[in-house]
Amino acid sequence: MSSVIASGQSRHDLKKPTLPQELTVVFQGDSITDYGRNRKSTDANDFKNIGNGYVNLSAAQLVGENPQTSWKYYNRGISGNKVHQLAERWDKDCLDLTPDVVSILIGVNDFWHIKKHGYSGTVKVYEDDLKALLDRTIKARPNVKFIIGQPFFLEEGSAIDMEEWFPAFTQYQKAAKKIADEYNTAWVPYQEVFDEALKKAPHTYWSWDGIHPSFAGCYIMAKAWIKAFDGLFV
Amino acid sequence: MSSVIASGQSRHDLKKPTLPQELTVVFQGDSITDYGRNRKSTDANDFKNIGNGYVNLSAAQLVGENPQTSWKYYNRGISGNKVHQLAERWDKDCLDLTPDVVSILIGVNDFWHIKKHGYSGTVKVYEDDLKALLDRTIKARPNVKFIIGQPFFLEEGSAIDMEEWFPAFTQYQKAAKKIADEYNTAWVPYQEVFDEALKKAPHTYWSWDGIHPSFAGCYIMAKAWIKAFDGLFV
Repeated sequence: MSSVIASGQSRHDLKKPTLPQELTVVFQGDSITDYGRNRKSTDANDFKNIGNGYVNLSAAQLVGENPQTSWKYYNRGISGNKVHQLAERWDKDCLDLTPDVVSILIGVNDFWHIKKHGYSGTVKVYEDDLKALLDRTIKARPNVKFIIGQPFFLEEGSAIDMEEWFPAFTQYQKAAKKIADEYNTAWVPYQEVFDEALKKAPHTYWSWDGIHPSFAGCYIMAKAWIKAFDGLFV
Repeated sequence: MSSVIASGQSRHDLKKPTLPQELTVVFQGDSITDYGRNRKSTDANDFKNIGNGYVNLSAAQLVGENPQTSWKYYNRGISGNKVHQLAERWDKDCLDLTPDVVSILIGVNDFWHIKKHGYSGTVKVYEDDLKALLDRTIKARPNVKFIIGQPFFLEEGSAIDMEEWFPAFTQYQKAAKKIADEYNTAWVPYQEVFDEALKKAPHTYWSWDGIHPSFAGCYIMAKAWIKAFDGLFV
């Protein structure tokens, strides 16, 4: 029952991060990021806007543990989004917020909606659109730092048909990792996080359908996200 | 930037708690507990029901860090409630859930609504009603454990008029502590937690009005709550 950071390899074993005084962080993504947030609330660090998922758990810990800073967190995830839908609202929901850190977790719908809703995208569209989004962000905010999250699935989940998902979905995961490497971004290996968690409890403990994390799943995501965030400032 | 538990004195320095496999925990209280939860969602560990406050942060960490268990968390806080309003809905919103642990944070409205809404209660009514609630719970659930939270305020908050609140409100805090001692419950010293936090950042960092915690305030509450929870099983 150790805490978010205390268990496993701790940051305390590593070089301590040098934290900035001011920082604006924008979380972008789909339902996993959105997670029940009130989209009418638009202020930074607004508990209604932040949702109930990994964004809340990550941001609350960081503000709670770092009262010497004045960091701003915005959640702008929207359920069902694919990369091209992030692009459509990127000015308003990312660049206008003048972010120093942009966290993006996207890809499940880019794949899932092909089967589920007849979406005509491909992994190449996903990769090209995501790169274009990063290029556009860098152009507007040259010193921006990215945190790219690995899209993930839990294979026994009720929404997952493994004949469809495997290995097709792994191409999207590889595309995200390739971009993270190419742009030298922070990387959150959510698939590994959940694969590891599945050794300790069944999939229903971590996710209600193989795509959307449970309460416990949100927590292990937050733990991994904070580790990636810390890495930005070491 | 250490975590919920890693900072300060860690439970790892102390005797490790012996955790039960099954456990049902009910959080009860007012707006600070309620904190934006969807009251239509009634399942245990439902992210919509759990709200965005200290309950979410506490429960998510405990389920995330303890996959060997199958614990159930319910949030049944309702904004504006005073003790007698908890009593009115106690069967449905506490006893019927067959709790092993009942966490109660109540008292701000028992005091505040006298000035704000012409409520006619007194500190004696608060104390007697809270004791009656505990007695009723013990009668239905003889092995129940309680976690009593200290009602708190941040003196510079916009909702606080110190001439009214001090020392009058401290009588409610003392009544809660007296009951916690008398019933040998776990105790969460939220006032001390916030007083300590105020040495590190101004009141607006921890609370938006001196009564309702910010994001960061919810986090330090969760940290204190988990410490009290752990103490139940040492």
